[in-house]
Amino acid sequence: MNIEEFFDRIISVKTDEDGNLNIIDQTLLPGEIKRINLNTKEEIWEAIKKLRVRGAPAIGVCAALGIAKTASQVQADNYADFEREFLGLKDYFASSRPTAVNLFWALNRMEDTLKSHKEKDIDEIKEILFKEADNIRNEDIAISRGIGELGFKLLKKLKRNGKEIGIMTHCNAGTLATAKYGTATAPMYMALENGFLGSDMHVYCDETRPLLQGARLTAFELSNACITTTLQCDNMASVLMKSGKIDIIFVGCDRVARNGDAANKIGTSGLAIIAKHYGIPFYVCAPTSTIDMNTATGDDIPIEIRDSDEVTDMWYKERMAPENIDVYNPAFDVTDHSLITGIITEKGICKYPFDKAFEKLGL
Amino acid sequence: MNIEEFFDRIISVKTDEDGNLNIIDQTLLPGEIKRINLNTKEEIWEAIKKLRVRGAPAIGVCAALGIAKTASQVQADNYADFEREFLGLKDYFASSRPTAVNLFWALNRMEDTLKSHKEKDIDEIKEILFKEADNIRNEDIAISRGIGELGFKLLKKLKRNGKEIGIMTHCNAGTLATAKYGTATAPMYMALENGFLGSDMHVYCDETRPLLQGARLTAFELSNACITTTLQCDNMASVLMKSGKIDIIFVGCDRVARNGDAANKIGTSGLAIIAKHYGIPFYVCAPTSTIDMNTATGDDIPIEIRDSDEVTDMWYKERMAPENIDVYNPAFDVTDHSLITGIITEKGICKYPFDKAFEKLGL
Repeated sequence: MNIEEFFDRIISVKTDEDGNLNIIDQTLLPGEIKRINLNTKEEIWEAIKKLRVRGAPAIGVCAALGIAKTASQVQADNYADFEREFLGLKDYFASSRPTAVNLFWALNRMEDTLKSHKEKDIDEIKEILFKEADNIRNEDIAISRGIGELGFKLLKKLKRNGKEIGIMTHCNAGTLATAKYGTATAPMYMALENGFLGSDMHVYCDETRPLLQGARLTAFELSNACITTTLQCDNMASVLMKSGKIDIIFVGCDRVARNGDAANKIGTSGLAIIAKHYGIPFYVCAPTSTIDMNTATGDDIPIEIRDSDEVTDMWYKERMAPENIDVYNPAFDVTDHSLITGIITEKGICKYPFDKAFEKLGL
Repeated sequence: MNIEEFFDRIISVKTDEDGNLNIIDQTLLPGEIKRINLNTKEEIWEAIKKLRVRGAPAIGVCAALGIAKTASQVQADNYADFEREFLGLKDYFASSRPTAVNLFWALNRMEDTLKSHKEKDIDEIKEILFKEADNIRNEDIAISRGIGELGFKLLKKLKRNGKEIGIMTHCNAGTLATAKYGTATAPMYMALENGFLGSDMHVYCDETRPLLQGARLTAFELSNACITTTLQCDNMASVLMKSGKIDIIFVGCDRVARNGDAANKIGTSGLAIIAKHYGIPFYVCAPTSTIDMNTATGDDIPIEIRDSDEVTDMWYKERMAPENIDVYNPAFDVTDHSLITGIITEKGICKYPFDKAFEKLGL
């Protein structure tokens, strides 16, 4: 399978020439690869609500493409009627996942686009909305490509005759979460696009407790791309790094503070500490949109604490902990900037001092 | 509940005055506390085989007490007949878990005891076997007490007015795995015996993937002892340590090399690296019997690699990883001696240089 066939099979959201949506149903992964068409607004809403589409960028892209398609089906004689219908659709889609920031961002951007073209006729506006949704998707793809190309340069330097490059990653910051290349996975996909074989790389995926995104999603997509892939429990990272099998680590991120402290899936900071102990380069893949120059340090990033059931019950045949036990279940942690070799953005790789490097990128 | 009531309820193996065995069925934990009597050799064999009793010391104690009881029921007129019957029982019990070293060790010790009393009459030999099984149990209890008392001294130094002592542990090296106090848990139980309240301590238990001994067993026994207990995923250790909640870490061990490198449950070495990063004292609780002066360093300790199913399928309603994915599942890792603050044995706390400290203990 070549890389384009892979993306065609796995990509989170596709559209045909009429703008009809088709998604991979992520609730069935990794057991079953099933793509479904989303023909109605109700189907699009349900797909976001039920996490058939997940990952912040992928949700934003799906919502933008979804509102463009459903708005194109609105029958309206004048702008006022069309806007009213559009805003109805927007509120409806926004109610699918009330905590998904990217969902609102994408829908607001579509609304802004609509309102800045009031004077155009309805058919023309419908075309403009399709184009804007496509822009949102293409911008995400371009950002991932930018990160991937810079990450790929790091991989090229690690390539030795006949020896696979050992890569570790955590959680899922991949194709399934974004419009195409992912962030932490982008270097590997870009390597395949540039002639690397899947066997030139060996990616070790942390299973990523408690939600197991590494086992269910990352191991799934990388092995489907024919990259040599191994799955391990989170607590096995140290023995893997000690064995000399890991040359480089790529992780995604949710938010980066001005000083380079990076919030990402729980477990990332421990991984970074262990990597530093063994002298293994640790890279955070971060679109510049995640770098928040108004947040001074990681201490200012709030950490979401999630339900105990995710640790004690979820996925299991029966509860795996005593009743009423206290559970600590933070969703994220903050990796100190001193542990980060580099932050790979679409505009360049930033190194310490990170605030200066971010300023150079115009942030 | 006072501490003796706790042990009476939770202890892995009990006997009455006639030597009848009673165990807590660990396969039902943490959902159900059920103690069962083992009345026949078949029931004892099945309990070991099916992991109703588990943990190396507990298995040894159960086998010794079990062969003493079942041998006492043998009808034999002379030593030769009795020995033949005894050896039949020994082979039978030894077949229950062919990889459990402590099982053979305990059974061999019982056989040696038998053979060194050939000249005695059968009833007297039966009494001697009961006593030897009790010695095996009492020695394990004494070793755990020794470790516990030294560990408790460390806890006393950490006690501040009104502030709980934060303790982290990994896997289960507790009551359920031993004759009474456990190893890594012994400091906490000894603290309770010496007047600490359960609320004076707050133990954070790693769930310990993939077999979840921390969630199923350690969190169960500590919370049953009314010690403040929190459960977390293995990958949450870093954020907990960073938060200042952890004052000290106790872990068990399977084998210690002459230089102090310590093999223990997978994940221990990563925990030790993170503890060192945050400056948190990291103690290995090790009976001197686990210190192997013939093994120069941890590099000489072989690491068991276990089935991939434990990571991808076990406990789950459905498989949580793609079919045919490669899985790395080491059962243990080796913590470098440079990461260990001290090794607590029943004879004293050893510090770097460990080989010299071990020699001082007469090893």
